[in-house]
Amino acid sequence: MTTAFLPSILGGAFLTAAALNAQTPTPALSKKGTNMSIPGYTHGGQLPASPVSMKELDLLKQSVLFTEEDIRYLRTSREVLQDQTEAVLDVWYGFVASRPHLVYYFGRKSDGQPDSAYLSAVRKRFGQWILDTASANYDQRWLDYQAEIARRHHRTGKNQTDHAASVDHISYRYLPAFIYPITATLKPFLAKKGHSQDEVEKMHQAWVKSVILQVILWSHPYVKDGDF
Amino acid sequence: MTTAFLPSILGGAFLTAAALNAQTPTPALSKKGTNMSIPGYTHGGQLPASPVSMKELDLLKQSVLFTEEDIRYLRTSREVLQDQTEAVLDVWYGFVASRPHLVYYFGRKSDGQPDSAYLSAVRKRFGQWILDTASANYDQRWLDYQAEIARRHHRTGKNQTDHAASVDHISYRYLPAFIYPITATLKPFLAKKGHSQDEVEKMHQAWVKSVILQVILWSHPYVKDGDF
Repeated sequence: MTTAFLPSILGGAFLTAAALNAQTPTPALSKKGTNMSIPGYTHGGQLPASPVSMKELDLLKQSVLFTEEDIRYLRTSREVLQDQTEAVLDVWYGFVASRPHLVYYFGRKSDGQPDSAYLSAVRKRFGQWILDTASANYDQRWLDYQAEIARRHHRTGKNQTDHAASVDHISYRYLPAFIYPITATLKPFLAKKGHSQDEVEKMHQAWVKSVILQVILWSHPYVKDGDF
Repeated sequence: MTTAFLPSILGGAFLTAAALNAQTPTPALSKKGTNMSIPGYTHGGQLPASPVSMKELDLLKQSVLFTEEDIRYLRTSREVLQDQTEAVLDVWYGFVASRPHLVYYFGRKSDGQPDSAYLSAVRKRFGQWILDTASANYDQRWLDYQAEIARRHHRTGKNQTDHAASVDHISYRYLPAFIYPITATLKPFLAKKGHSQDEVEKMHQAWVKSVILQVILWSHPYVKDGDF
């Protein structure tokens, strides 16, 4: 699979993608996957503890068949993706930009137009998220940061980090929905560094499992008390 | 990929699987994917309208890149799976049975032991669910039935259909988690009828998209008012 596959899988025009993609590139990222120079990137900082425990995360890992092998393949994917994050983000932002019902969530409340400063600020953290997911250090600090990412999607925390004047809330339904486009569009990038088809498949499957786990964690503020 | 893959992907013992799998087979299923002889299978019956509209479902389909091609491949998968549903269910029930934190949801409140009548009743509808998913007639009646399936997982409706004395609620977290094992373990079965690797892959991807869509619909009763 090559990137020639992307326009077909995304199945849509990229009319406004160029505008949305004209952002500052993600700052150079450290090997450790931490980059405190990204505004609002508070992974490893002082954060409240996740409402989900490490033991509960472990049961979720078992439930999505996430194993040590997945950690290895995610880390291989980090090497593969490290110099491709901007290209991946171009595709993801293009996907959102070409769909009014999705770009809406980056829209200004005042006039509904995409808030380019907000898009740009989120994009830098999104680039770091690729590397953090691939680093697969799913420890307590990572877990706590997932709760913060959750809050930033939900009405309890959206816009605050970037002081954005955007809509108040991202509808729950699009969190699980994104599992598919995020991971499907990533696959061609995983194949770009000469790995075998089997290795690419294993990297891709490890990513699918990890994104499912993260979507579950990000759903927490949306779910009724006691139902999670 | 063959079924030899299954024990390794499931990565666990099947100690109690045989017991759980000793159920009555799913009744013969009609070509139309409707079988009113399955107790509690009310697809097409008198049901309240789904809280999600067909228009909202369409936007969700767009978001998971679900197209007419996926409908075609799902329908191909129906032919492939039609005589394999019991074998698929053996794997899925084995997956649940080998994990105490999952089989818990089929447990009796009185003593925590799996409720075999409840497991058996759900199993018949689960077999029909395979065929309904693959039939891909995602119309208003199907949408309304997804809301009923949602209710049966949630504390507002669990156990009622089967008059089961089981735990009151399935935790939200395991609905998205199941996207992975359900679709990964299905793939070897999709490969069993001589289709090309590309066709198997496309059937599998169509299944992943459909299961994501359904998990979103099933999440509705779990999500706070206005957050969905």
